[in-house]
Amino acid sequence: MTGNAADLVARHRPTLDAALAAIRTREFFSHFPEQSKAYPKEAAEAARAWFETVRGTRFPLDQPGTDGDTGAERSPYGFDLGITYPHADLDALLPAMAAGMTAWRDAGPEVRAAVCVEILTELNELSFQIAYAAMHTSGQAFGMAFQAAGPHAQDRGLEAVAYAYAAMTAHVSQAIWEKPQGSRPPIRLAKKWIAAPRGIALVVGCNTFPTWNGYPGMFASLATGNAVVVKPHPNAILPLAVTVAAARRVLEAAGFDPNLVALAAEAPGEGIAKTLALRPEVRIIDFTGSNEFGDWLEHNARQAQVFTEKAGTNTIILDSFDEDEYPAALDHLAFSLSLYTAQMCTAPQNLLLPRDGVRVGGAVKPFEEFASDLADAVGRLLGDDARATAILGAVVNPAVMERLSRAEGVGKTVLASRPVTHPEFPDAAVRTPLIAAVDAADAEVYGHEWFGPISFLIATDSTAHSIELYQDTVREHGALTAAVYSTSPDVIAATEEATWTAGANLSINLTGGIYMNQSSGFSDYHGTGLNPAANGTYTDHAFVAPRFRFVQSRRPA
Amino acid sequence: MTGNAADLVARHRPTLDAALAAIRTREFFSHFPEQSKAYPKEAAEAARAWFETVRGTRFPLDQPGTDGDTGAERSPYGFDLGITYPHADLDALLPAMAAGMTAWRDAGPEVRAAVCVEILTELNELSFQIAYAAMHTSGQAFGMAFQAAGPHAQDRGLEAVAYAYAAMTAHVSQAIWEKPQGSRPPIRLAKKWIAAPRGIALVVGCNTFPTWNGYPGMFASLATGNAVVVKPHPNAILPLAVTVAAARRVLEAAGFDPNLVALAAEAPGEGIAKTLALRPEVRIIDFTGSNEFGDWLEHNARQAQVFTEKAGTNTIILDSFDEDEYPAALDHLAFSLSLYTAQMCTAPQNLLLPRDGVRVGGAVKPFEEFASDLADAVGRLLGDDARATAILGAVVNPAVMERLSRAEGVGKTVLASRPVTHPEFPDAAVRTPLIAAVDAADAEVYGHEWFGPISFLIATDSTAHSIELYQDTVREHGALTAAVYSTSPDVIAATEEATWTAGANLSINLTGGIYMNQSSGFSDYHGTGLNPAANGTYTDHAFVAPRFRFVQSRRPA
Repeated sequence: MTGNAADLVARHRPTLDAALAAIRTREFFSHFPEQSKAYPKEAAEAARAWFETVRGTRFPLDQPGTDGDTGAERSPYGFDLGITYPHADLDALLPAMAAGMTAWRDAGPEVRAAVCVEILTELNELSFQIAYAAMHTSGQAFGMAFQAAGPHAQDRGLEAVAYAYAAMTAHVSQAIWEKPQGSRPPIRLAKKWIAAPRGIALVVGCNTFPTWNGYPGMFASLATGNAVVVKPHPNAILPLAVTVAAARRVLEAAGFDPNLVALAAEAPGEGIAKTLALRPEVRIIDFTGSNEFGDWLEHNARQAQVFTEKAGTNTIILDSFDEDEYPAALDHLAFSLSLYTAQMCTAPQNLLLPRDGVRVGGAVKPFEEFASDLADAVGRLLGDDARATAILGAVVNPAVMERLSRAEGVGKTVLASRPVTHPEFPDAAVRTPLIAAVDAADAEVYGHEWFGPISFLIATDSTAHSIELYQDTVREHGALTAAVYSTSPDVIAATEEATWTAGANLSINLTGGIYMNQSSGFSDYHGTGLNPAANGTYTDHAFVAPRFRFVQSRRPA
Repeated sequence: MTGNAADLVARHRPTLDAALAAIRTREFFSHFPEQSKAYPKEAAEAARAWFETVRGTRFPLDQPGTDGDTGAERSPYGFDLGITYPHADLDALLPAMAAGMTAWRDAGPEVRAAVCVEILTELNELSFQIAYAAMHTSGQAFGMAFQAAGPHAQDRGLEAVAYAYAAMTAHVSQAIWEKPQGSRPPIRLAKKWIAAPRGIALVVGCNTFPTWNGYPGMFASLATGNAVVVKPHPNAILPLAVTVAAARRVLEAAGFDPNLVALAAEAPGEGIAKTLALRPEVRIIDFTGSNEFGDWLEHNARQAQVFTEKAGTNTIILDSFDEDEYPAALDHLAFSLSLYTAQMCTAPQNLLLPRDGVRVGGAVKPFEEFASDLADAVGRLLGDDARATAILGAVVNPAVMERLSRAEGVGKTVLASRPVTHPEFPDAAVRTPLIAAVDAADAEVYGHEWFGPISFLIATDSTAHSIELYQDTVREHGALTAAVYSTSPDVIAATEEATWTAGANLSINLTGGIYMNQSSGFSDYHGTGLNPAANGTYTDHAFVAPRFRFVQSRRPA
């Protein structure tokens, strides 16, 4: 252990222990504060200055095998970033990445965990830089970009480190095995186990949550001894470039090969992810994105352990409300449908309610009235443009706009999407949600994901029918999240029962400051692996344990 | 919890706790005694009588969807068993199996673990029956059949139950999550997690170790809440039929649906494993057998989590011996090459030694002399026919005989295989090992598995060359086990280093009563997942955690 590595263990062991406790108790835990006021006052302004400086330049990243520059990011707020990144010759980069793996493996689980926590700590100090980087690649509003791409992503990374450490230290690393032989002396063997990495891990980043969705796989793979090559989405390179640069700095300072983490930026359309995914050195892949590429990876990258998060049809079952909870529930739903223009893999899309309406207090609220109440709530929430943009952010890419246009012709429009003018970025595309009413029979409409601010009020025969439809749709088309609103314990129990089979994570009667869209590290799972939306979750043992392998030796003691 | 289930928890909790401790300490642990004298005196004789009774009859197994009888097992000891088994209409059987899964899931991890331990306890009481069943399907000698198919397999099953329980209880099943909100009241959510099964698990049994290789997957899947359909090798149905019948009895007595475990026996050539492997209900597959079918499963059964154990080239590096250890090492190697006619996935095949010879004490023992010494040791071990058959058992199937014939023409025969007459079963095919000398250049010979009593002394340039060849061969062609004999700490360290990359489990300088072929539950891993011989191991978290999925709900507290 280098002196520095020992220091890092001493410094970060308490953090690791707290995270290990949190993944067992599942109680509230956060290591990296989500409130910007917990950070130095000058950090936000310094980061804004940094962002202006970095625009139009070559991002400094000294990696082996660089054979050119690439990068053509454009901010969803309406300007080109003009940043270029090193482009890698994989035949040079991958061998260089593999070179440091033996020393990294031999450092052992505790040192690797400490180095990973140090990387996360360094990233935490860069949270405002990452916030600007995320805002101008994902289109999130600044406040959300700060929390989601910064401390929340860092907490998810720490959670993955804790799970990796727990899995690798599930048993001793050496033992004396003594087998009794009756009256003869026992057989004694000295045994030793090491946690061996699989190889190089590939992280394929997404456009909307490059760090939040990228860190779990990245840190799970790194903590288990693998090298990690990060392939960002061509529209969202900067947040991961900052991440990779930080990881390389910390690795080097701790006495390890910085090439254990590298960036593989590509030009749009280059398809470097496919090339990487089929390289024999690549033994782990984490992917967030489209069904098309996720399915391709699962079927073709046979040499690798593949973790995917793909599309889904997140669903809400609307049954009944206490009269005094109803307004809060409407406001809550409106926010869920609006946050970051519903460009979240966890945002609701399919709202199932009986065609006869929902019960509010003692009365039945007809379908059309509920639709109108919900539309009004969204209108109230987003009535002021400045407030609206702080919630909505910007439309991440033209595909969302195209989908919105198509949705205008679907079913009966309950709420039309309107453009909002961003007070600071007039060229940004900002759009409010569209809500359409359709029938349960229109499965060809709601039976797939409409990524973006598009949701459907789906008329069913009854709540029982809603629950059945929920279970079937999610089993077939996937979902990460679900919600139910009901005053009936039986309906809630039936929805839970359907959930255990469908494998979405269910929120019940939420009206407060936590939304179904939100999944908190150390407590909430993100995905289950039971339905097509994801083949795993952040984070459980199934997500970390296959990233390394125990190998043993034994000899007479 | 039914009364019976509560009784089972009370009865088996100490066993579960002992197993949970053992998988952490990796010290010697065995719950089911391997010595036959630990069992009632009359049990062996009663089992022999049972075996004679069961021959020529229909095996009693009352399963839904039975549409006929099948079965054409022939004992490797030279007679037809004449036993038939129910053949299943999968369209009736699989839905019937799925029907009991909700109650089984809702019983929870502790009750399921207790029921699984009860099944293993029942199987333990049937160890002598299973020994006869295994002997006359696998060809193992009776003593080995008793230990390997009985208590050792049961311990492996218990180990899988312990891992499954540990993974499912890695955190609490409910919690109050309380997020501080500064001066405002905290947000409080009541959260609940359940371990949900994936679906129906398929266990594809092998010919040689139907229970030892079958129980880990079977019990890991059952303990995690899945139903399990057991598809035995057409030549080795009886041991798994006894197993399934016992599981069904225990499940029913404990108040669960016996159809949670069922047998899917097939006629030779029916290919029911392929049909089952592609059924959408089948979400987990455990397979032991050929590369061909294992690779097919990995590529085609995309809806399932697939665990495979396939062929490999287990390797020994021969470098140097203490003079006084040399005779014991030769005898030890001779036993490793002979045990159960080397029809073990862990038996050595490739013995690498410098073409100039190995060092014994202060002198160099030339290659040819070492070859001759080893051949003599095998000759001594197997010189007496009765003793030989107790070690060798019988040749399991004609493919092994065919391979032996082919091996006669390979390289320079150092030791020819000879037929042995079995004192009790004169029609049994019993053969001693064949050893051939080849050169390191003959990779087309030793670069694949010759399943059976065939091994190669491979002449290398040096021990360093041997280690390099070991690492490369195992990475490319797979291996479960490896061994090294050397007096040099440097050679041992270099072999260990190669092992961490190659992913075989290494035995160093063994001369006593534990052989490289042997892998002990609760301490030794079987396979690593790092090389083509297996994509997982018995048993670690990666082997159990993907068999279930955490699903959660949360509501305001």
